[in-house]
Amino acid sequence: MTTSFTVTGVEGVPLIKPGDDLAAILIAAVGEQDIQLLDGDIIVIAQKIVSKAEGRLVDLSAVDPSAEASKLAEKTDKNPQHVELILQESREIVRSKPGVIVVEHRLGHVLANAGIDRSNVEAPTDGESALLLPVDPDASAAALKDRFEAHWNRELGVLIADSVGRAWRLGTVGIAIGAAGVASLHDQRGDPDLFGRPMETTVTGHADAIASAATLLMGEAAEATPAAVVRGVVRGEPAPARSINRPKAEDMFR
Amino acid sequence: MTTSFTVTGVEGVPLIKPGDDLAAILIAAVGEQDIQLLDGDIIVIAQKIVSKAEGRLVDLSAVDPSAEASKLAEKTDKNPQHVELILQESREIVRSKPGVIVVEHRLGHVLANAGIDRSNVEAPTDGESALLLPVDPDASAAALKDRFEAHWNRELGVLIADSVGRAWRLGTVGIAIGAAGVASLHDQRGDPDLFGRPMETTVTGHADAIASAATLLMGEAAEATPAAVVRGVVRGEPAPARSINRPKAEDMFR
Repeated sequence: MTTSFTVTGVEGVPLIKPGDDLAAILIAAVGEQDIQLLDGDIIVIAQKIVSKAEGRLVDLSAVDPSAEASKLAEKTDKNPQHVELILQESREIVRSKPGVIVVEHRLGHVLANAGIDRSNVEAPTDGESALLLPVDPDASAAALKDRFEAHWNRELGVLIADSVGRAWRLGTVGIAIGAAGVASLHDQRGDPDLFGRPMETTVTGHADAIASAATLLMGEAAEATPAAVVRGVVRGEPAPARSINRPKAEDMFR
Repeated sequence: MTTSFTVTGVEGVPLIKPGDDLAAILIAAVGEQDIQLLDGDIIVIAQKIVSKAEGRLVDLSAVDPSAEASKLAEKTDKNPQHVELILQESREIVRSKPGVIVVEHRLGHVLANAGIDRSNVEAPTDGESALLLPVDPDASAAALKDRFEAHWNRELGVLIADSVGRAWRLGTVGIAIGAAGVASLHDQRGDPDLFGRPMETTVTGHADAIASAATLLMGEAAEATPAAVVRGVVRGEPAPARSINRPKAEDMFR
């Protein structure tokens, strides 16, 4: 009768380099850890290693900042090359202040600095490289899911998780920027509540909550747990992570 | 070597009424489910049952809306009594549009409709009652922690979880509005990354992520799992949930 779920960190993953076969590396790591995957398991993978494998590492010194980037870099006290990449990866600047540029990413979600990471990234000298988000993380998740399902012969879900800040709360939490085989949103509208009255609104951020759970194990410092297996959570009606983005017409803060 | 954590739903909790001894009821439910608590376990409790036990259910027909509430109710197409309660529970209106009033709650966090819930609430007639957040959920969490620790003789954490919407993403996720014995924020600033470079910024929203994980089991419809036991997650340096609120001086959206 007890309902529970488990989140298990996938450890022993080597440093990922551009062009690495990430599916093969994760399959090996899960195998070495002796985790037997079951139908319904969800594999959550840190954005960083997906981006690295896909060659999204950029040498900052090779970036030529535009006039717009240089101006915004001065205003925000940021590296002009970094700002140039932020602009290239974004559709719109939502807000900016020293240290932070909040944008609508080309993938459609609103976040700080276009998710461009300068930590845990190989660089000969400090600050010379930056890691962009995957080109199409929903497609990356779908491709990884196909490989995992072919190898394990199980029905699986895959999420690509990023850690993001929030407008009104301190601290980062995990969100799903790529999803395959998992409900991005879990719609309970219309289900009766405990007293038989229809629910007012209950669409849960299912994939984001799973990503948040996984990031409790996937430490951001020198902890090297870039993936986790979530077992026992409903997968629901699969939908890509881009369907989580609130349509701009509903946005009260732009 | 494997790192993992488990989230187990606490079921069989009866409908909670004003004045109920919630600690005793949860202790009984955990006992009936034969969960043996261990040092470090975190008990996550849905805000709804804490509010109900604390008598935060309000008969809407007894609420007299102010002129300000009536005007805002018209603008937002909401029930004037409901809007009056939202105003009473808030410090400031941040945004409003039909169906939604985003406020800074008197507890300091920014959310829609002051977290005042009209579902899963006993009411003789539809729409006549509303459930306010606990008066001081950090204090409620601390009191529950004391009771739980006295009963089980273990060092425990307690979180009170609410489900909230987000500005730029669809779907609700769990957040911690009350915390005792758990780190609200987990500060990894200064830890070196995998390459020995100091991290740029890594304060994780630890309590919110745990609350999100727990709400994956604590369904909002007729599922009656109003609490969960989280085992295997770092508790960290305890701090109240109110410390998660971003200071207004840092707010880019007000």
